[in-house]
Amino acid sequence: MKGRKLLMIPGPVEFDPAVMEAMGEATTSHVAPDFIEAFGQALERMRQVWLSPDGQPFVVAGSGTLAMDLAVANLVEPGDRALVINTGYFSDRMAAMLERYGAGVDHVRAPVGDRPSAEAVEAALSQADYKVVTITHVDTSTGVIADVEKWTRLSRQRGALTIVDGVCSVAGEELRQEAWGVDVALTASQKAVGVPPGLALLVAGPKAMDAFRRRRGPVANYYADWTNWLPIMEAYEARRPAYFGTPPVNLIAALNVSLGQILAEGMDARFERHHRMSRAVKAAVSALGLGQVPLRDEVAAHTLTAPRYPAGVDSALLGHVKAAGAMLAGGLHPDIKTEYFRIGHMGVTGFGDVLATIGALEQGLMAVGYDFAPGAGLAAAQALLLD
Amino acid sequence: MKGRKLLMIPGPVEFDPAVMEAMGEATTSHVAPDFIEAFGQALERMRQVWLSPDGQPFVVAGSGTLAMDLAVANLVEPGDRALVINTGYFSDRMAAMLERYGAGVDHVRAPVGDRPSAEAVEAALSQADYKVVTITHVDTSTGVIADVEKWTRLSRQRGALTIVDGVCSVAGEELRQEAWGVDVALTASQKAVGVPPGLALLVAGPKAMDAFRRRRGPVANYYADWTNWLPIMEAYEARRPAYFGTPPVNLIAALNVSLGQILAEGMDARFERHHRMSRAVKAAVSALGLGQVPLRDEVAAHTLTAPRYPAGVDSALLGHVKAAGAMLAGGLHPDIKTEYFRIGHMGVTGFGDVLATIGALEQGLMAVGYDFAPGAGLAAAQALLLD
Repeated sequence: MKGRKLLMIPGPVEFDPAVMEAMGEATTSHVAPDFIEAFGQALERMRQVWLSPDGQPFVVAGSGTLAMDLAVANLVEPGDRALVINTGYFSDRMAAMLERYGAGVDHVRAPVGDRPSAEAVEAALSQADYKVVTITHVDTSTGVIADVEKWTRLSRQRGALTIVDGVCSVAGEELRQEAWGVDVALTASQKAVGVPPGLALLVAGPKAMDAFRRRRGPVANYYADWTNWLPIMEAYEARRPAYFGTPPVNLIAALNVSLGQILAEGMDARFERHHRMSRAVKAAVSALGLGQVPLRDEVAAHTLTAPRYPAGVDSALLGHVKAAGAMLAGGLHPDIKTEYFRIGHMGVTGFGDVLATIGALEQGLMAVGYDFAPGAGLAAAQALLLD
Repeated sequence: MKGRKLLMIPGPVEFDPAVMEAMGEATTSHVAPDFIEAFGQALERMRQVWLSPDGQPFVVAGSGTLAMDLAVANLVEPGDRALVINTGYFSDRMAAMLERYGAGVDHVRAPVGDRPSAEAVEAALSQADYKVVTITHVDTSTGVIADVEKWTRLSRQRGALTIVDGVCSVAGEELRQEAWGVDVALTASQKAVGVPPGLALLVAGPKAMDAFRRRRGPVANYYADWTNWLPIMEAYEARRPAYFGTPPVNLIAALNVSLGQILAEGMDARFERHHRMSRAVKAAVSALGLGQVPLRDEVAAHTLTAPRYPAGVDSALLGHVKAAGAMLAGGLHPDIKTEYFRIGHMGVTGFGDVLATIGALEQGLMAVGYDFAPGAGLAAAQALLLD
């Protein structure tokens, strides 16, 4: 029996062996021709994965929080007004960041597990002249998915730029940056993009680049300043080396491998596969009698599932699930942290991984003495994987 | 014949196979017990490698420039005065960063290839009440080494905090953070620390932490704010997980492996080995009739060598050296960019690598028609490697 547990948390997730091979390959120079080609190709491929043919990609060493910072620090100046469409923990972080860079921030909120209605978003938008609207596509803390297409349209109508935090969505959830008019879409490498943690990834559309060029003052954050990184991205894409900071050579090589795999699958097929995995996990969770944090199917993300512990069961469950072969994540949203757990299912995670995870969940539930029909979750999942 | 070229640039450098194995290992969760142990151990080991038993280590996903930002953004506030002891390209970058965060910056300079005298530093320090003095231990652009011990003592006498940019020095050049009174010593993973690029590393001494706690206002850079990272570092060192941003799991596992190897070698032995490699390369370069950017032996770093092209030879040389098996780096300092090249020799680079590199340099010089006695460089290097 393999000792390793399946990594079924909302990131890092399971990665492809070819990606890990690139991680472990002897590091080359950041000005070596093979690396220049890999970096240039990765930038081109990001445009295709983001469905943003006219976007400007940025790849910088850092976490997903840096990706947020790369968006906010470059687009916000003191005195700007911003609207946060708030669906949880990561929306709160976006607000903290906007305030740090001097923006006046308003929120439009919904109860935990829900998202604001289009009417509520429209009403909030009418309250001030917002420069920026932020949307957390999937709030990893609750598993709630935003209506990016509609909210972006409404924001555009008011002349606001939209920043989409796609940390738990890009390359998993349907996100069509250009068609939907999203100005910035950002993510981190360790989610649906399928690369170990360490890369902040972002594509900025033409309106975002224009807004950046029209800034009144310098960017407050030196490391995140696009002024430093834009010439580097342009140079590598033109297959020339350029230096600002040493690029994380192995992570970028791994990124290029993963983006190639994503495009070989095709974006529509990939979105559909994530939907299918999500339906299967959610059906299994329901068949086992567990509720979920998202209040309705329609507001539930497809890259993770956030089941509530059944009565009499607490986070000790996760230790038993792990012993049975799958690592799941605990709660994160401060209001309900101890009441739920999270299952990530994105990237190269396969249907077999999903079934093994449901099997481990059933074994964990048995171990804590929860009463249910063994196999019920697996059968429900299988029905939807085959569907 | 192996296809791979020796990576003899001033970072990334050659890495140990065990380090690369950790890079390529299946990624685990950032809250998995084995990762918590690796991260906690890496933090403890940083204190030993930095020779800073009472320092606070920080490990954050990013490049060396982020490490600089992690120091400057947290210690500098608008209106502070800073003195940059300027020895090249990276000192200029430090100045740009200090200004970005609102400091008034003065420089004490020396001609390219030299460093300011202790008297010049002392005179500069007396001109204002500086909160911060920055020192670039090894300016990677010129190969000039700073007198960190003396300059730090002078700065302390005036009550200033010293930030040492040790990007091309930590774990290679002698740097005794506590004994010398250095307040912050920072580096990037891909230099003498021996890990692929992607980690910003920093140890802050007690006075730096005090100054941070006494700030008048919030840190201008959200991602770099110690307020966010300090609880994370404290938690992992206490072997508890904590979340701010997802840590770069594979890079941190690799860091822990490399720090273990560094401590097994021993810091004094490691400093001495770097001195020996440096003497050998510099003797070879001289024996081949090439000058160097540093004007005197005393101001030349031990982690890299910056030879000048001989008359009639230009950067085409580097292509021939690469064809013969070793990748070297071109010039970086804007004033003399086309006049010199750079050889990195740090980390696990062995004496055999050094000889192979000198051999490749000789072959490159032959290929461009330079007149010299083949083997002269190798013989000179060998004499000093054996010494």
